Amino acid sequence: MSAPILVVGGGPAGLAAAEALASAGQRSILVEKEARLGGAPILSGYAKLVPSGEWAKDAIGGMVRRVEANALVQREPGCTVTAFSGEAGDFTAGLSNGKSLQVSAAILCTGFTHFDSVNKPEWGFGTYPDVVTTTQVEQMISSGNGVRCPSDGRKPQRVAILLCVGSRDRQIGREWCSKICCTVSANIAMEIREELPDCHVYIYYMDIRTFGLYETKYYWASQEVHKVKYIKARVAEVTSDGSRLVLKAEDTLVKRPITIPFDLVVHAIGMDPNVDNRSIAQVFGVALEEHGFLGKAGSYAHFGETSRPGVFVAGSATGPETIDDSIGQARAAAMSAFALARSRTAVPA
Amino acid sequence: MSAPILVVGGGPAGLAAAEALASAGQRSILVEKEARLGGAPILSGYAKLVPSGEWAKDAIGGMVRRVEANALVQREPGCTVTAFSGEAGDFTAGLSNGKSLQVSAAILCTGFTHFDSVNKPEWGFGTYPDVVTTTQVEQMISSGNGVRCPSDGRKPQRVAILLCVGSRDRQIGREWCSKICCTVSANIAMEIREELPDCHVYIYYMDIRTFGLYETKYYWASQEVHKVKYIKARVAEVTSDGSRLVLKAEDTLVKRPITIPFDLVVHAIGMDPNVDNRSIAQVFGVALEEHGFLGKAGSYAHFGETSRPGVFVAGSATGPETIDDSIGQARAAAMSAFALARSRTAVPA
Repeated sequence: MSAPILVVGGGPAGLAAAEALASAGQRSILVEKEARLGGAPILSGYAKLVPSGEWAKDAIGGMVRRVEANALVQREPGCTVTAFSGEAGDFTAGLSNGKSLQVSAAILCTGFTHFDSVNKPEWGFGTYPDVVTTTQVEQMISSGNGVRCPSDGRKPQRVAILLCVGSRDRQIGREWCSKICCTVSANIAMEIREELPDCHVYIYYMDIRTFGLYETKYYWASQEVHKVKYIKARVAEVTSDGSRLVLKAEDTLVKRPITIPFDLVVHAIGMDPNVDNRSIAQVFGVALEEHGFLGKAGSYAHFGETSRPGVFVAGSATGPETIDDSIGQARAAAMSAFALARSRTAVPA
Repeated sequence: MSAPILVVGGGPAGLAAAEALASAGQRSILVEKEARLGGAPILSGYAKLVPSGEWAKDAIGGMVRRVEANALVQREPGCTVTAFSGEAGDFTAGLSNGKSLQVSAAILCTGFTHFDSVNKPEWGFGTYPDVVTTTQVEQMISSGNGVRCPSDGRKPQRVAILLCVGSRDRQIGREWCSKICCTVSANIAMEIREELPDCHVYIYYMDIRTFGLYETKYYWASQEVHKVKYIKARVAEVTSDGSRLVLKAEDTLVKRPITIPFDLVVHAIGMDPNVDNRSIAQVFGVALEEHGFLGKAGSYAHFGETSRPGVFVAGSATGPETIDDSIGQARAAAMSAFALARSRTAVPA
């Protein structure tokens, strides 16, 4: 029996890695800093996921329940890794709960941190209660109470979703694209239109990045089936006229300023590097990439590897990522870690 | 010892699946319809890959060489699967070379077909020799001979790259986005600017979809370091004035027609469903999705599965895909297939 594999982070990627390892008969230890497993989709209360349309509490919640029921996965919630030494195949990990573990490999599935919209103050978040984030709208939907204006609980008649809040924005040091916000926003827009058929929903964008097969399911369906309106614009500011929010922007297609009143303005917030990445990188002795995400090997010969042999990485720890690709990368990393663990214990056939 | 796993397709995904299985000690049989392994990057002569920057012949060629040297991978080149029966854990596959194989699972890595630009005749391909595809430019670069006008071998002074040729185009029945052409085109544009510093390179686009971390490496670097120019436009037609190509379009930002002469016009061709998908779906008894790609399970509980238990799918067989994600999906599918094979042979501990 080989030593277990350490999986750090209990979101979609970590859950997928642990489940994949167990399916191959491999023990793992799943360390999660929060008290609950599930990561952002569960802890932040996401609604229906892109592109499966499954509710987060069913889809990711199901992954949590399967992992919790699996005897091959030792769970260490409410805990972080504070020390990590040794070499590929034979590491020792120290946990914040005092435990010391012998593991053959580690898979870092430490995820991202939601962009905090207070860092984009001219767009009204933190000043006006009816300026909210996509995460808050997800919570409104998943709560079953519907999308309402926080200020007075009324049903909004006009909603604006602003893309690229905390993404593609050099003024605030976030040059990267967060990859999935366009598609998530189209999905949310359709959800709002379904719940509130009289509500007008506008999406303010720079480029619409509903890549691959998302094009049919989100880009076209949102416009043609659900009558969501897209405005290519540079947003200047969000203010209030006392009764409604006022959104000022430059329409970059017609090249003129547009000022439109809205009941609810939604920030499509981006994915920041996990705020803990510096300490994670230090503890595990792995390199960060230029924006502060965990660095991954560029070469296909070293897929899913970090700069330290035996330490693998998957999901949005490495940069903005979809849940699907996070799960795929995690299962792929599990395969790499499993092969490493096996190579230390296999006997010749 | 469990029965081997059938891997269909010898491109990046199939190679990754076979290599991953072997790393876990699992035998596989790799069936490839062409005489050579490597898939599109090798057979179509791609140059430097996105985003690793590795030459295709090194990166994917390296995967080929590792698989060819691996005793756990039985290769069946120049061959297709003509029959497939049984159930998960116990399938029988018939090959076009007459062999009959017992396999525990199958992973379909059958890839895509490049869009054929003759299906967009108004954009000049097939009429003017200096209208070429991104694949042809990749071949010019990887050959070492440099980017030249096919008509007379001269170095182009002005190059236009047209995005979304065979993508996001309902007129020709291709509604999907091909996901990676924007980034590949930015990469090619930079390659041209490096080889030919006096050449002006323009990219005609609808939306620039250099998602995630590609934003820094391709979107910004192409504009700021390499001075590639982006024009948001609807392309009308490509003609010739007798000495140079003439590209007519509507600039959708300034709302006026623009007519610009070019020496070389490059079609950024999209990814069609593999032309063999109907027969592949029939032989393996799996469903296609609405555009003709191989259908994959929507639920995270069935990651990488097709509609038939024991038959998995990965890479661009399922829709436009990057090489990185194809490899990740293939390694993930290998883990699923391995777990299935193991479940049929494992003895209780």
